[in-house]
Amino acid sequence: MTAESAIAAKANDNGDAEPIYRESLVKLMRAHDSFGAWEKKSDEEILQGFVLTKEQRRAIPVIGEPDSKVLWRLEVFYTAVSYAITRRTGLDTTPIIKISGEGFGRVMITVGRLVVLSRSLRDVHRFGFDSTDALASAGESMVAESIDAIERFPAVARETE
Amino acid sequence: MTAESAIAAKANDNGDAEPIYRESLVKLMRAHDSFGAWEKKSDEEILQGFVLTKEQRRAIPVIGEPDSKVLWRLEVFYTAVSYAITRRTGLDTTPIIKISGEGFGRVMITVGRLVVLSRSLRDVHRFGFDSTDALASAGESMVAESIDAIERFPAVARETE
Repeated sequence: MTAESAIAAKANDNGDAEPIYRESLVKLMRAHDSFGAWEKKSDEEILQGFVLTKEQRRAIPVIGEPDSKVLWRLEVFYTAVSYAITRRTGLDTTPIIKISGEGFGRVMITVGRLVVLSRSLRDVHRFGFDSTDALASAGESMVAESIDAIERFPAVARETE
Repeated sequence: MTAESAIAAKANDNGDAEPIYRESLVKLMRAHDSFGAWEKKSDEEILQGFVLTKEQRRAIPVIGEPDSKVLWRLEVFYTAVSYAITRRTGLDTTPIIKISGEGFGRVMITVGRLVVLSRSLRDVHRFGFDSTDALASAGESMVAESIDAIERFPAVARETE
């Protein structure tokens, strides 16, 4: 199956892709839940960990290293983008997240030889969203941007080294 | 200037590119030498830090985290590949080196939306070369591979997000 037909197969009758990010993130979060701590929690409750109000965000100092919980959320957020791209296209994706220190960093997701998503990160300490809807919509738009890149350069996305 | 013409301009009359890696690495190493410790050292002496005999390599245990000196050498080795690609093509390159722990990791160099080089790393503790010639030749072949990718996909390399 080519990249194009894989993508087409998952689109609905209007040609729009169904949202896939939120579900992908929840699946990944639950997969990490080896002790069953979240078994009785709803998807919405699980995603609440990504929500920070403006006041909460401002209260977090951006000096020193971000704490390990926020680094974990950042990692799972972008890994879920990567996972959603794979679910939609059937292509292998490689996420690479590098925190260079003091809350700066870079995220890249590649498919074959194609960089489908690239973001520089700053103030990682304060990584979070206004609501779970804002979270889902941020992830969804990254998935859409990545799939758009694959559709424009399918030969590059298919080339593996 | 297009990517293609930039590359062509730096090739010699035989169409072969002049070696560029060794010099790029030395330049970078000297740029890091803020205290002038290497001022009186020859290029060859500076590069000796990358040489490990087979016996030396075997003597290094591959458990725990690699030491900071070897991580620095790894970083400068790949950054020099990136720098040499820029010198040859005039295009911006982004190196991203992620050590995921226990001596495993990944290196990626991108130009625009193109992954020009991708390597998974292991036994980073033992990173080194049999000789400075082996070092230069390893770097040179990565530069050549990267430029080859740019020549095959110039539109992707020129696309910036």
